[in-house]
Amino acid sequence: MALVVEKTSSGREYKVKDMSQADFGRLEIELAEVEMPGLMSCRTEFGPSQPFKGARITGSLHMTIQTAVLIETLTALGAEVRWCSCNIFSTQDHAAAAIARDSAAVFAWKGETLQEYWWCTERALDWGPGGGPDLIVDDGGDATLLIHEGVKAEEEFEKSGKIPDPSSTDNVEFQIVLSIIKDGLTTDPKRYHKMKERLVGVSEETTTGVKRLYQMQATGALLFPAINVNDSVTKSKFDNLYGCRHSLPDGLMRATDIMIAGKVAVVAGYGDVGKGCAAALKQAGARVIVTEIDPICALQALMEGIPVLTLEDVVSEADIFVTTTGNKDIIMVSDMKKMKNNAIVCNIGHFDNEIDMQGLETYPGVKRITIKPQTDRWVFPETNTGIIVLAEGRLMNLGCATGHPSFVMSCSFTNQVIAQLELWKEKDSGKYEKKVYVLPKHLDEKVAALHLGKLGAKLTKLSKDQADYISVPVEGPYKPAHYRY
Amino acid sequence: MALVVEKTSSGREYKVKDMSQADFGRLEIELAEVEMPGLMSCRTEFGPSQPFKGARITGSLHMTIQTAVLIETLTALGAEVRWCSCNIFSTQDHAAAAIARDSAAVFAWKGETLQEYWWCTERALDWGPGGGPDLIVDDGGDATLLIHEGVKAEEEFEKSGKIPDPSSTDNVEFQIVLSIIKDGLTTDPKRYHKMKERLVGVSEETTTGVKRLYQMQATGALLFPAINVNDSVTKSKFDNLYGCRHSLPDGLMRATDIMIAGKVAVVAGYGDVGKGCAAALKQAGARVIVTEIDPICALQALMEGIPVLTLEDVVSEADIFVTTTGNKDIIMVSDMKKMKNNAIVCNIGHFDNEIDMQGLETYPGVKRITIKPQTDRWVFPETNTGIIVLAEGRLMNLGCATGHPSFVMSCSFTNQVIAQLELWKEKDSGKYEKKVYVLPKHLDEKVAALHLGKLGAKLTKLSKDQADYISVPVEGPYKPAHYRY
Amino acid sequence: MALVVEKTSSGREYKVKDMSQADFGRLEIELAEVEMPGLMSCRTEFGPSQPFKGARITGSLHMTIQTAVLIETLTALGAEVRWCSCNIFSTQDHAAAAIARDSAAVFAWKGETLQEYWWCTERALDWGPGGGPDLIVDDGGDATLLIHEGVKAEEEFEKSGKIPDPSSTDNVEFQIVLSIIKDGLTTDPKRYHKMKERLVGVSEETTTGVKRLYQMQATGALLFPAINVNDSVTKSKFDNLYGCRHSLPDGLMRATDIMIAGKVAVVAGYGDVGKGCAAALKQAGARVIVTEIDPICALQALMEGIPVLTLEDVVSEADIFVTTTGNKDIIMVSDMKKMKNNAIVCNIGHFDNEIDMQGLETYPGVKRITIKPQTDRWVFPETNTGIIVLAEGRLMNLGCATGHPSFVMSCSFTNQVIAQLELWKEKDSGKYEKKVYVLPKHLDEKVAALHLGKLGAKLTKLSKDQADYISVPVEGPYKPAHYRY
Amino acid sequence: MALVVEKTSSGREYKVKDMSQADFGRLEIELAEVEMPGLMSCRTEFGPSQPFKGARITGSLHMTIQTAVLIETLTALGAEVRWCSCNIFSTQDHAAAAIARDSAAVFAWKGETLQEYWWCTERALDWGPGGGPDLIVDDGGDATLLIHEGVKAEEEFEKSGKIPDPSSTDNVEFQIVLSIIKDGLTTDPKRYHKMKERLVGVSEETTTGVKRLYQMQATGALLFPAINVNDSVTKSKFDNLYGCRHSLPDGLMRATDIMIAGKVAVVAGYGDVGKGCAAALKQAGARVIVTEIDPICALQALMEGIPVLTLEDVVSEADIFVTTTGNKDIIMVSDMKKMKNNAIVCNIGHFDNEIDMQGLETYPGVKRITIKPQTDRWVFPETNTGIIVLAEGRLMNLGCATGHPSFVMSCSFTNQVIAQLELWKEKDSGKYEKKVYVLPKHLDEKVAALHLGKLGAKLTKLSKDQADYISVPVEGPYKPAHYRY
Repeated sequence: MALVVEKTSSGREYKVKDMSQADFGRLEIELAEVEMPGLMSCRTEFGPSQPFKGARITGSLHMTIQTAVLIETLTALGAEVRWCSCNIFSTQDHAAAAIARDSAAVFAWKGETLQEYWWCTERALDWGPGGGPDLIVDDGGDATLLIHEGVKAEEEFEKSGKIPDPSSTDNVEFQIVLSIIKDGLTTDPKRYHKMKERLVGVSEETTTGVKRLYQMQATGALLFPAINVNDSVTKSKFDNLYGCRHSLPDGLMRATDIMIAGKVAVVAGYGDVGKGCAAALKQAGARVIVTEIDPICALQALMEGIPVLTLEDVVSEADIFVTTTGNKDIIMVSDMKKMKNNAIVCNIGHFDNEIDMQGLETYPGVKRITIKPQTDRWVFPETNTGIIVLAEGRLMNLGCATGHPSFVMSCSFTNQVIAQLELWKEKDSGKYEKKVYVLPKHLDEKVAALHLGKLGAKLTKLSKDQADYISVPVEGPYKPAHYRY
Repeated sequence: MALVVEKTSSGREYKVKDMSQADFGRLEIELAEVEMPGLMSCRTEFGPSQPFKGARITGSLHMTIQTAVLIETLTALGAEVRWCSCNIFSTQDHAAAAIARDSAAVFAWKGETLQEYWWCTERALDWGPGGGPDLIVDDGGDATLLIHEGVKAEEEFEKSGKIPDPSSTDNVEFQIVLSIIKDGLTTDPKRYHKMKERLVGVSEETTTGVKRLYQMQATGALLFPAINVNDSVTKSKFDNLYGCRHSLPDGLMRATDIMIAGKVAVVAGYGDVGKGCAAALKQAGARVIVTEIDPICALQALMEGIPVLTLEDVVSEADIFVTTTGNKDIIMVSDMKKMKNNAIVCNIGHFDNEIDMQGLETYPGVKRITIKPQTDRWVFPETNTGIIVLAEGRLMNLGCATGHPSFVMSCSFTNQVIAQLELWKEKDSGKYEKKVYVLPKHLDEKVAALHLGKLGAKLTKLSKDQADYISVPVEGPYKPAHYRY
Repeated sequence: MALVVEKTSSGREYKVKDMSQADFGRLEIELAEVEMPGLMSCRTEFGPSQPFKGARITGSLHMTIQTAVLIETLTALGAEVRWCSCNIFSTQDHAAAAIARDSAAVFAWKGETLQEYWWCTERALDWGPGGGPDLIVDDGGDATLLIHEGVKAEEEFEKSGKIPDPSSTDNVEFQIVLSIIKDGLTTDPKRYHKMKERLVGVSEETTTGVKRLYQMQATGALLFPAINVNDSVTKSKFDNLYGCRHSLPDGLMRATDIMIAGKVAVVAGYGDVGKGCAAALKQAGARVIVTEIDPICALQALMEGIPVLTLEDVVSEADIFVTTTGNKDIIMVSDMKKMKNNAIVCNIGHFDNEIDMQGLETYPGVKRITIKPQTDRWVFPETNTGIIVLAEGRLMNLGCATGHPSFVMSCSFTNQVIAQLELWKEKDSGKYEKKVYVLPKHLDEKVAALHLGKLGAKLTKLSKDQADYISVPVEGPYKPAHYRY
Repeated sequence: MALVVEKTSSGREYKVKDMSQADFGRLEIELAEVEMPGLMSCRTEFGPSQPFKGARITGSLHMTIQTAVLIETLTALGAEVRWCSCNIFSTQDHAAAAIARDSAAVFAWKGETLQEYWWCTERALDWGPGGGPDLIVDDGGDATLLIHEGVKAEEEFEKSGKIPDPSSTDNVEFQIVLSIIKDGLTTDPKRYHKMKERLVGVSEETTTGVKRLYQMQATGALLFPAINVNDSVTKSKFDNLYGCRHSLPDGLMRATDIMIAGKVAVVAGYGDVGKGCAAALKQAGARVIVTEIDPICALQALMEGIPVLTLEDVVSEADIFVTTTGNKDIIMVSDMKKMKNNAIVCNIGHFDNEIDMQGLETYPGVKRITIKPQTDRWVFPETNTGIIVLAEGRLMNLGCATGHPSFVMSCSFTNQVIAQLELWKEKDSGKYEKKVYVLPKHLDEKVAALHLGKLGAKLTKLSKDQADYISVPVEGPYKPAHYRY
């Protein structure tokens, strides 16, 4: 796509695939609202007081129907919003269109190139000459990364006059990041400093981004406060677990129509995401095998009747391979060569480097046959047999299906709204330093509580006497911080 | 679509949506072949001897990728084939295109009108002046019905000169059937008689069609032999059960993206289809409730932890309603009015009369909002709340997703191939009268055996001594006819 | 125990372990009555008319608490009853005591020798000089066998004067049978003929017994009508399946306290019993492997995510082995030698010859260490490692636990009562020939219906219009005879 | 029992039910050793260096077969041990006999009165004039409580001369505690001070005991360091969850033989214990309903398809009630009166005050019928219907069955051994203050790792590169402290 910003009749910027899908997006947004009671409750509770009045929020998070409901919750609370996706395949174009038309500046489409992806990110962060956003909603940490790298380069430039050199790295994606920063430097050598100064904080959605934040905190490199939304119980134990339990088979079915029953499936990693995937596959009638590095998670798998083996043990016998580790180099091209014909290889964990896509793409003589978008058959020249790779190794539930369903995303995103409200409310109080914080347990419990009514649940109330007996307040929080659920 | 037959360069007739999808269809057919070991084994075993040489086969069965592999198995065994779908929404257009281009005469597209549907059926049966097909592969019995009704009308016409009067029935679909027969009568008053005379027999795929056949057998109206494929164990206990366990959630997800976990789901009927649906919903985290008329099936549900209640008990509390009964009038418009906003109503059992679509469509003031094809929100004027109906009340797994996956259809369709072979082989022997037959158990066991290798299974062999001890042959069959599996 | 018949104060014969347990037995019988709605309904419906007035019923069926409720249902309907167990370990002594004291002549105790076992069977059949019982309730067919062998021997004796020679067979148990018959012959050479002549029929409980009956029917050897209760849907698809799902883990836990989660368990056979066992083990967190001879059952296991392998493949890796086949020589001593230390070997299918107990007992140098009754560790001299055999290879759920729970036995035993009523009612009508019959479907459905209320279920009623549409009576039966559930 | 200490021939004290069961106990201990790889590894790894040489360990923890293996691990590492049970019903008398005969001083039997219970606790703490133990293994905190209350009373006595007055409390059990302390005071007014001074620390097994410890830490009342073993992942997420999943149905089956399938079961509380119970009941075919105060746990239940309601909603419809809350007054006698006839009421959570046993026992006209030990039917005079209470409201898995199985207890108890080793090693280093500590994650992971081999699992090894990528050491620990598993 030509990377030219367009404008709505009211002058709001956007770049989406097809504005004519806005009506369809709106219909699906309306359906999703019924399934997202936490977000709708936020609108009811906070809408009237317009707490985000005057706040600029940039989001870098899969531009789906569910995210659309999040965005319109932020705007319903008074915020101005710019948005990009955090994954080249995860945008739902009708959602992007509806939001671009009706609510916020959106730069996102399904099937971006890496170049386009970072252009979108940069657009979402660019609020004009007055600096960047007040708040960031981040997923995976790319928006946060761009600012941190930008500031670093500007400092280097100020100190030594040195301009970032994209050719200094082998990493194709990082080359693009450096190019963008380089371009920025020539326009305004304080561009990212201004962003940093304005920024009140970031709330981060996912394990990978959170890991980056803690690393920056450890080295003192973190430039602004961060709230770790991922580790709210109502996020990591719901979205990661139950979301993937839903969206893994959804992705497999839409991409390949394969019968899961009877198949042998390998799940690499048995964290929350792996637990959800293994549960889904097992329930659908697959024989699941888990690979793990962590003996505790391994023992959990065994207690559920799931064998724990190494990839090597099973690589030539399994039909389906799913990576969920958050690490890299889990399935290498040398593994893929040993697989059965038409074995399915996909990733629902982290970046596309869980699977050795680079090794596959550069394998001598390999042939790529695109069955349909996000479903490729790669044929090795030696055997003339092939494997099927989903979503080019990126998150298959977002690339091949529509990601997690609305209800569970309502839990995650209500945490986001609450985190953003908290950062904004305390912007001048000094409560949050340049560190990583988790939401307090009573807010976590509140998020859960907002989702019970929709499912017809009734809570039991503690008597004062009972509350005293177990030393908790009648109204909660009910568990110590270390409780694992 | 203009109802005009087209021709391939080689002169074969067809009518499909978009011939340019043939390459895509071919790629998916090739994937499916790997998942359909039973059909591929038939090609290996019977292909060389060309047993269908000279046979004309007409099929009326969902024109999907899996059916494409069935069709090409029939042609690989020497048959000439004409095909239509047995459901207005179930055709996969790329499958239809690939077959039309490469292998057989196809008349089918996704989203036929009823008028178009019966036109396609009539086209598939029309082999030119020399009469109709030698063999029919039927699903639901519409091809069989058309011939029986045609013969009946011709007899009446011969006797009394009376022409069928479409206005004599309220049933819209039957009006169309009568029109077609009426048109036929004017061209050739012996058209359906000729078909009947040529016909060697039919093999019927599904419960509904089988029921019709047994009724005709009971009244002596059956015009040719029929093999009941549905009641092969490897059909009804696999396709109906495990197929629906796979394709029900697939359809729900593609159509609505709804999170199944946490929801209350009502499954009407706990036969094989209902068992598969209930299992799928339960495993995905729904609270399932079954409605049943049969106390035995009801007790089975209870033993699986599923409550058995009436629709009335739960109509206003459930989120998802699935009909699987094979009966009519299961969910009436008066029920739908009592449902929660955005309750999902769908059918995976039988015809669209399981759900009172006619009552819904004609409800005063009701508003239909099409979210996307096969996903409609119907809003009642009194409450301004709506329900979501999938696939217009027709089979939702075929309308909203891609039907059952290849592996389980390989079981069903291998039964079809074997049944067709049997009918054709015995066409002159008088072995089969104008009755309904089930395949013998050793063939049923053979179908299963053909599917074990793909899943890495190894059978234990009986010793002669053991076989004698339980009075079975070493090579099977291993169970008495009444065994229930 | 000294084999001397004792008498109650009212003169009824019995031989049980400990009459002082009668009160305890009575308390548990009262609990069981609440769980056996089918039997209690029979008492309400038929009790007043005393249909068994004048009937002598002999039962050979595990003398448990549940059987006690069956016996007292028969007596409540007017029958006179004599009873023995059909398994040397399955008697619950408190149940036997309560019945012996209060209701019927009982000859049964836990831990009979084979000699004692057949003495008890013979006692139960002996109603004094006037011949034997009018009706037999049989389980496994031993009572039926004794009469058939007796008649055969008497015929031979009459013809040739030949007396049965126990030393003519290697089978230890059959030697005992022949001894008993021999003794009978000397007392009364027409003893078994008189029994045969009086006998109206037998109703048989289980797969093994039914198989024997069909074999006798096939050779014309069957001496009286038989009703196959096992193949009532409400028996074989409930007791065999759900009963074993309950009682297999119960037996394992009581016998060994082993943690099932994490273990590898092999289930030999995937019929109804095997399905129940595999389900139980899987749910408890074991990795289950099935062995099968039948490709259809094998494919069912695979669809549930259970691998199908041969015993040889897994014998040295599994922790638990369960035989459910109804065949013999499933686990041989040569297999047991290859097992891991403390592997558990047990049988829930059929006789103790599923496991090669004879091979084990006679293995040179093998050492048997009884942990507690029915739990033996057998140590091989070569390795000094051992395996744990439950219930000496006999039915482990009855030997190590208390058998199936009351509710599911209520289904089975209600079929028994109905079968006995039917045989007795038709004793003079000639309706039943010397053949094997299954109960008609409407009675099968009735048994199920009697068990729904206890579980709070509500059935949906067909309208007349709906019933006509699917061609069934409004009140059922709802399914064709071949329906598999 | 007469409360007189007995002595072995070697002079070791004990008081058990029946010393003749020692051989049986020994056989079961030997079986359990094979199932407890963690403890056996400790013997191998630490045995040679005798790290507990000179240490006196007092344990107050269910005196079962599994605990016997723990005790003999402690003695194998050089410790001298005295033991009592922490529950009046949980002792397995054959285990107690074997240990008393062979390894340690034991004061425990199944079915202690409260008076006897505290006598045993006091005996286990009494190491003679030189003070008490060096280390305590506690479960529920009763041994710790006795010392704390003793010290408090001695301080009060020293200050004011005041002697504890049992009549000052309504709590029957606490009256006994005060009596014991009072008796102690008259013998030696520094008895508990001497214990306190010698004590290096306690390791506490369970939620309830841990809660008490944190409360004492909060008020500064804790007299010595404590290690919270309960919150090791390999304890609370294994023993509490998978242990109860095993032992709840075991207890139900042994106590009542009830068929779980088809029943409605209420689980009060959805923490780790509740999750295990609900899973077990659901898998066995019950319809499970959860009651909860915590919205997060409630939402977890809903995601697993389990409705969350209040006790009031379901009290008259359910068949089985299980308390798992760790709180009191969960099921009151007023609730029990509303239950169905023969509803089962039991507790697997905490003390017998989860169920209102006092209210039940003192209910006017109530009648208690003991079916067998630990299984009582309580009949209300108004309705003449009854409920069945297990284990007198105490832990039913220990009272009615044999508690958790060996394998999962090996995880818990390996944590205990490691905690005891740590306390003893650091006794002079000042590392541990008078606070509550959790074991470091690498030890938690080690416990898990010791249990993988037995289950045939193979871990994947991180490469250095991968470890760096996710910022963990190659050898672990692999997760942040807050990770929830």
